[in-house]
Amino acid sequence: MKALIINCTLKPSPEFSNTGALIKKAEQQLKESGVTTEVIRLVDYNIKPGTEADMGKGDEWPAILEKLKNADIFIIATPIWMGHLASTTQRIIERLDAIFHDEQFADKETGQYITYNRVAGCLVTGNEDGAHASAAQILWAMQELGFTIPPNVNAYWVGMAGDDKDYVEGGGERYLYTNYTLRWMIANLTYFAKLLKANPIPSNLKALRVLAEKESKND
Amino acid sequence: MKALIINCTLKPSPEFSNTGALIKKAEQQLKESGVTTEVIRLVDYNIKPGTEADMGKGDEWPAILEKLKNADIFIIATPIWMGHLASTTQRIIERLDAIFHDEQFADKETGQYITYNRVAGCLVTGNEDGAHASAAQILWAMQELGFTIPPNVNAYWVGMAGDDKDYVEGGGERYLYTNYTLRWMIANLTYFAKLLKANPIPSNLKALRVLAEKESKND
Amino acid sequence: MKALIINCTLKPSPEFSNTGALIKKAEQQLKESGVTTEVIRLVDYNIKPGTEADMGKGDEWPAILEKLKNADIFIIATPIWMGHLASTTQRIIERLDAIFHDEQFADKETGQYITYNRVAGCLVTGNEDGAHASAAQILWAMQELGFTIPPNVNAYWVGMAGDDKDYVEGGGERYLYTNYTLRWMIANLTYFAKLLKANPIPSNLKALRVLAEKESKND
Amino acid sequence: MKALIINCTLKPSPEFSNTGALIKKAEQQLKESGVTTEVIRLVDYNIKPGTEADMGKGDEWPAILEKLKNADIFIIATPIWMGHLASTTQRIIERLDAIFHDEQFADKETGQYITYNRVAGCLVTGNEDGAHASAAQILWAMQELGFTIPPNVNAYWVGMAGDDKDYVEGGGERYLYTNYTLRWMIANLTYFAKLLKANPIPSNLKALRVLAEKESKND
Repeated sequence: MKALIINCTLKPSPEFSNTGALIKKAEQQLKESGVTTEVIRLVDYNIKPGTEADMGKGDEWPAILEKLKNADIFIIATPIWMGHLASTTQRIIERLDAIFHDEQFADKETGQYITYNRVAGCLVTGNEDGAHASAAQILWAMQELGFTIPPNVNAYWVGMAGDDKDYVEGGGERYLYTNYTLRWMIANLTYFAKLLKANPIPSNLKALRVLAEKESKND
Repeated sequence: MKALIINCTLKPSPEFSNTGALIKKAEQQLKESGVTTEVIRLVDYNIKPGTEADMGKGDEWPAILEKLKNADIFIIATPIWMGHLASTTQRIIERLDAIFHDEQFADKETGQYITYNRVAGCLVTGNEDGAHASAAQILWAMQELGFTIPPNVNAYWVGMAGDDKDYVEGGGERYLYTNYTLRWMIANLTYFAKLLKANPIPSNLKALRVLAEKESKND
Repeated sequence: MKALIINCTLKPSPEFSNTGALIKKAEQQLKESGVTTEVIRLVDYNIKPGTEADMGKGDEWPAILEKLKNADIFIIATPIWMGHLASTTQRIIERLDAIFHDEQFADKETGQYITYNRVAGCLVTGNEDGAHASAAQILWAMQELGFTIPPNVNAYWVGMAGDDKDYVEGGGERYLYTNYTLRWMIANLTYFAKLLKANPIPSNLKALRVLAEKESKND
Repeated sequence: MKALIINCTLKPSPEFSNTGALIKKAEQQLKESGVTTEVIRLVDYNIKPGTEADMGKGDEWPAILEKLKNADIFIIATPIWMGHLASTTQRIIERLDAIFHDEQFADKETGQYITYNRVAGCLVTGNEDGAHASAAQILWAMQELGFTIPPNVNAYWVGMAGDDKDYVEGGGERYLYTNYTLRWMIANLTYFAKLLKANPIPSNLKALRVLAEKESKND
């Protein structure tokens, strides 16, 4: 079992990343569950803007996409800026849009996206407010892209209204709510990843679309 | 297998509900998959404001909650108003908040919410814009409340920017995109409901919380 | 100058409302600025679901709408439930949708909505997270409905991630960030209400629409 | 009077931008109102990730920020990806976060952000769904950053559910709803820009904060 975690901090290596500190906890628990982990710090790569799998010369997204194809568990870890997921996180969502229109990502027989039978969750950190809105956007997009979303797969830490302390400075590493929801998240992601590996989703999306065509008049 | 669908239209019976027309299609497909269905039109009931399981005299939510406890598949069907899920839909979410703080909804041994091993999806209809935002809020809340979210479990119909035609008048019943995403949704909900019935989630949330307490200092 | 504040707490009178406690501060500052205030606790009224100005027998919204017509400043005060504005708040937005399609709300000559030359702001309270998302939805809707949104017109209080203390219990009344942003909000709302009274918006929406028709083909 | 419009398309020059096609209409109307316009295509510049005014070597944001300082009207034009504003748009919001914590952006006497007495609006284009959510996030952020939001200052074009046609291909240039809301937007932005130039906001944010400190205990 493999997990890919993308850290969407705006700060390039080797700067300290608070989101990275929360990822460390997730990583350790994944390893204890027998899952191999890899963490990508997105801002260290040249991820070109666009919605294709490969945006051409210099684009470093294709290599990350390759890792994603091999991951059973996908975790997006985002900071919040103005109540909202980071630009880097939205960049991932934009690049994954290729799954919808590029045939290489759909099974030839079933039409299932390559993300089927894989699970997704998210981590969110911020000084204050915006965790729910960020998680809702991420998890909805992942569900739309074909990932399964087990129960309780978002863990987050934010301070009080208008606060300016970060996760570590604000004591987030020893904050109970974040710590137990993270454990729930890892346990559920791990169980579902195994469950889907053993019991792949049988839906034939292509055949269902043919049925739909019969009852539709595409305007 | 049982499915509970709540129609959150603002229009009381016997007025025509466009959201209800989309529900009809979902119902038929569920039945064809051997699932028993029940549709509740929320606005026909006195659902008191609040966040408890029972808000007292005259409150008709407890009877609906009872149905929810017996459903393997839960579908919220919402209209959109100003880019947003309906007040009736948010009322459901508020009433389900009781799951977080009322012990009757958690398994005594594992702490799992009563919603564990059940699946949720949503239907959205509107004249224009707001389907993604509505679905994201609903599916995130359901995931947080303990439901599993299979891939591609939101189907919707909306017209163009600023349009004022409803689902049926706008030809939604014969609109291909809505029809094939609905079929994907029903197929995936049905598969996951069976899968979880046969393979219940083993996570012991109580035990995981105890582990988290050891690494935390609750401020 | 008159201000109408709607308290969207889910708790009916005479229960204590935390949102109400924040409103008290707003009220006092408005009065000190010479503004007459009225507070409506929405849940104490029978506000029927729907999107018309008057939903018929028993509907108590028309009387509130009458107050809104006479207010220079409109403030919506909402609690947060699951990262989201309350069902009561969304009910207001739905009822105000009538402004878009009911001719009684548009000036016969200019087509301006009755809300033009009035200002709106919002107050948000919650145990945790969701203030930005709630404020964004409210202020966007008010802007769309014709209100002017001055700078810095949302004040809020929320606790840390997953917290369960309310505004008063959590010390919100003495929380600096909430207190100074509230003062900014009241100062700016008051200034703009006066400014627009003295300098009404001249835009003739009907004439602009005629110009647009010339460059459009309405499909 | 000057207007700065930022085109947040993901496509670099000289590729055709649909968002750019809608901007052209806005530009023409601004010019007819006597406003000088400048359009920046963000993706053509190296805008480093971060939340400071200047992120160092190679960062081309400072030059754009300089233009923003001289603009009376600020318009963000964003495409939608998966129901959400573009990564490029969120990048602008992140970079403007500096206004909150970098003293160079606050008036020494009043504490007003440099954005006070300026107005903001937004344009949104997409194949389908997400315009309201994108506009709500942009306008809320602009309001929070100190801009004034006049009524009806978002114009958008999107197709039906799941559609894949772009603004121009979909006939957006001749689409009535988009065309008349754009005219309303430009008229109101222009009026308010002049109004605020002649009647600057008098609020002394620093003095108001001192008053708030007296009633607060900053934890």
